[in-house]
Amino acid sequence: MTTYTLYDYRPSGNGYKIRLLLTQLGIPYTYVEKNIIQGETRTPAFLAINPNGRIPVLELEPGLYLSESNAILLYLSENTPFLPTDRLERAYVNQWLFFEQYSHEPYIATSRFLLTYKPDEQSQALIAQKRQPGYAALGVMEQRLSEHPFLVGDRYTIADIALYAYTHVADEGGFDLSGFPGILTWIDRVQTQPNHLRITETHGGKPRSGD
Amino acid sequence: MTTYTLYDYRPSGNGYKIRLLLTQLGIPYTYVEKNIIQGETRTPAFLAINPNGRIPVLELEPGLYLSESNAILLYLSENTPFLPTDRLERAYVNQWLFFEQYSHEPYIATSRFLLTYKPDEQSQALIAQKRQPGYAALGVMEQRLSEHPFLVGDRYTIADIALYAYTHVADEGGFDLSGFPGILTWIDRVQTQPNHLRITETHGGKPRSGD
Repeated sequence: MTTYTLYDYRPSGNGYKIRLLLTQLGIPYTYVEKNIIQGETRTPAFLAINPNGRIPVLELEPGLYLSESNAILLYLSENTPFLPTDRLERAYVNQWLFFEQYSHEPYIATSRFLLTYKPDEQSQALIAQKRQPGYAALGVMEQRLSEHPFLVGDRYTIADIALYAYTHVADEGGFDLSGFPGILTWIDRVQTQPNHLRITETHGGKPRSGD
Repeated sequence: MTTYTLYDYRPSGNGYKIRLLLTQLGIPYTYVEKNIIQGETRTPAFLAINPNGRIPVLELEPGLYLSESNAILLYLSENTPFLPTDRLERAYVNQWLFFEQYSHEPYIATSRFLLTYKPDEQSQALIAQKRQPGYAALGVMEQRLSEHPFLVGDRYTIADIALYAYTHVADEGGFDLSGFPGILTWIDRVQTQPNHLRITETHGGKPRSGD
């Protein structure tokens, strides 16, 4: 079997989702860092890998690339305990994955990005606009997590991985989680899953020589 | 088998995806219109159906609701010709579905929404910001469609349905498709698939009495 190569940027929550799942699946991989701040995902060489110019990208075999973090999660988790086999439970995993990319990431992850890399006046205005929809997304999660241990069924799945990635660092985007006790308990629960990995860590990922 | 109920708003491209697939699958359904402009998806009754306050929502059986248009597409297409069985092809379907929600819909669909319902000065500034990323998304599609008949493999799948929904009305958001010959040919190809349905049509969907 070919070793996967992950093109990623260490602070990225989207990339972290893949690193976390690969680690929990015990799958070794080659790690290639692309600094998105320095434009390394917009070079002709990288656009040949992903025309959309974004990390993470997983090279499945030489020359065969899959992008979109949640599509990669679905690919890797198939036939593993991280993706339910029940049709309805899988539907709800998908529901959370699309919720994450449409209603959560653009507000919570983007606020963290702006605060970290572009903390200027223009960003402050943008971050202010993201507050209400960001908190609304956290409210949707809280409604579920105040009554259930995990997002789908009663088990840790890729839905938890996808939502955990940016939720647990929401404070870095200026979001206060103290009003969301269900989310806070769930964060603890996710962090105590076997083989947990912290964001920016790359356990199991070996840098490719020359990169 | 219970008849599905679709909660939807007729001009919505996200709702149209589901109407189109249900029609092409020959599955009858009950249709309940919720006017998003009039706040009908933010009432307590609707939030009990979808805490995220968005259409479309498919009621799978009484009291059991699935939201997120692309999650609904995946649910309905399982074990049908609209979703490939090959693992890699399914991964690429997912990749396009997440691309649509993250890199396409927020620019192309939202521009159409603003131009249609809020054509004021503030919207014009917002629409201007959405031009570049919207055209970038169309460029990613063009790269694929200038060389292939469909987005995944050589067959019409839910990836085409998901991307077609807002792409074919991109002009209503002020996007000019004339520079995208691959997309234009693909639009024709999608429109000639058996049992095609035009946006805002609800063939096969029967209004629920009382709604």
